Amino acid sequence: MLIAVDAMGGDFAPVEPCNGAIMACRENPDLSVALVGDSNKILPIIDKYGADVRSRLSVVHADEVIDCNDSPSLSIRRKKNSSLVIGFGMVRSGEADGIVSSGSTGAIAAGGVLLLGRIPGIDRPGLGAVLPVLNRPTLLMDVGGTVRCKPINLFQFAQMGSIYMKLFKGVENPSVRLLCNGEEITKGDEVISAARELIKASDLNYQGYAEGKDLPHGISDVVICDGFSGNILIKFGEGLGELLKDQFKEEYTHHLLPKIGLMFMWPAMKRVLGRFDWEKVGGSPLLGVNGSVIKVHGRSKRSAISFAILSAANFVEHHGVERIREAIAVEDEVL
Amino acid sequence: MLIAVDAMGGDFAPVEPCNGAIMACRENPDLSVALVGDSNKILPIIDKYGADVRSRLSVVHADEVIDCNDSPSLSIRRKKNSSLVIGFGMVRSGEADGIVSSGSTGAIAAGGVLLLGRIPGIDRPGLGAVLPVLNRPTLLMDVGGTVRCKPINLFQFAQMGSIYMKLFKGVENPSVRLLCNGEEITKGDEVISAARELIKASDLNYQGYAEGKDLPHGISDVVICDGFSGNILIKFGEGLGELLKDQFKEEYTHHLLPKIGLMFMWPAMKRVLGRFDWEKVGGSPLLGVNGSVIKVHGRSKRSAISFAILSAANFVEHHGVERIREAIAVEDEVL
Repeated sequence: MLIAVDAMGGDFAPVEPCNGAIMACRENPDLSVALVGDSNKILPIIDKYGADVRSRLSVVHADEVIDCNDSPSLSIRRKKNSSLVIGFGMVRSGEADGIVSSGSTGAIAAGGVLLLGRIPGIDRPGLGAVLPVLNRPTLLMDVGGTVRCKPINLFQFAQMGSIYMKLFKGVENPSVRLLCNGEEITKGDEVISAARELIKASDLNYQGYAEGKDLPHGISDVVICDGFSGNILIKFGEGLGELLKDQFKEEYTHHLLPKIGLMFMWPAMKRVLGRFDWEKVGGSPLLGVNGSVIKVHGRSKRSAISFAILSAANFVEHHGVERIREAIAVEDEVL
Repeated sequence: MLIAVDAMGGDFAPVEPCNGAIMACRENPDLSVALVGDSNKILPIIDKYGADVRSRLSVVHADEVIDCNDSPSLSIRRKKNSSLVIGFGMVRSGEADGIVSSGSTGAIAAGGVLLLGRIPGIDRPGLGAVLPVLNRPTLLMDVGGTVRCKPINLFQFAQMGSIYMKLFKGVENPSVRLLCNGEEITKGDEVISAARELIKASDLNYQGYAEGKDLPHGISDVVICDGFSGNILIKFGEGLGELLKDQFKEEYTHHLLPKIGLMFMWPAMKRVLGRFDWEKVGGSPLLGVNGSVIKVHGRSKRSAISFAILSAANFVEHHGVERIREAIAVEDEVL
């Protein structure tokens, strides 16, 4: 099993992707990782590790990097020597089994479609985000792959999301909800209503609409929305988290009482925050393309990247692409 | 100045709306409030108060209540004796200057359009929510009045939102941003692009797109989006807040250390949370209808309702409806 890792993607490249690869190899003895990027920068990071891990790391040199300012599809077409394009090429040729990148979301989605291609019958791939919410992880999908959706897109996200949560998170008969501006059937718009009917008519475990306030409480295994909604939502959550952290940090730094208080509260805070550890959810799968593709947040450190690599390997081991292909083929026969 | 208060709306009706009215009257000596609802329930609550406040409270009896399960426009048309419909009728006839309700959002929006009517030139009214974020209050608009929008709707929300923040929050030349799934001009969809061009061509202080993560940091005075996005976003924030509160409460209740820690941290927590006090923002204005209409959250207590009543009075004192009418008329001439 070989997973290609875009060693140049994200805010802490190449150090964190390289160390993430090392962590993942230690965790899974059957795993090998190809680090794609500037070999002059990558080799010094990995060469100090013992043969048990080092022997399962290879380096594939790439001269270029796609950054957030590049147009996603143009950069995929033009930057042939970028770490991301070379990594996707390895998956396409079968050399690698999957790819993990903490680079630009748009470029990863475009790369998945243009370089790996969609699974037959899939209209649009979907980028899921596993939210570390209460009670159970929730797959929110899409979070930026497909900005505006047709009913068939939302339906296929529900199919693919259910398969993902079943195979890779071990959820039996995953519950599915559609994100909506209210729980009543009259809410939403025509696209959401039509998607609801498609999902209800299928064998998916549809439970109704989910409101924004339900998401943090883990109301469902899978929550479906268009990429616009999913994107603003997860970024809003991220912004709120940062803000609260900054505010309390400011207090600890300038006042004695909260500093003492924090010492007493630390175990409780660790317990609470440990329940919502987004690093452990294993990144965001791009579902619906011919390959195991996991995107990690640009600010991810080694631990989050390691979980994402293990997640990509897990997807391959469980034949994720084949399972989605089968589900879509059956659906096509029924429709 | 007479503001009608729907005394039967919200989770704590009629006690909290009545007490909110009393608080508002104490705050503003020129204010009178008509409490609309079941007089048998309202009178015992208010009769114990001294003449200075009691003399400025009147009770308008209403037999019916519109609840969240009622269809918004049907209930407005059929429940003629409901507190909400009677309250709107008082504004329409000129008997009251404005109305405050913590009832169903849909019914308030429908009541505004059907009973007060839109300001000429306004295609769709918008429900704003003043977010108590860092640095400055941010008006997010729409949060559920108009689920899906045309470019003209988003543009008019920007106009009305700017007027609201200027007149009622004293913001000079309010900055305006469009909520989007990225800051680059290529993000969003055709509706957002077209709205962006309309706003840029106007005299509004347009600053670009805002991402979800920017919102909590107070990136702009006004942030425009469709009602679907605004609704899921504020409810998600609400759900996250509740969840964190519940989680820490659980810790305090069952463990000694965090209880001690909390004692030390209490002043810091009060300082931090005080910066994000949504009760003080004065409710959500329904802009674009012929009247001063403020919606308050269903779970609002007296303090939040009092601020909303003062906000409604403030809108009337500043001739909010006329200012919006003038702005739209000028725009119509230019277009």
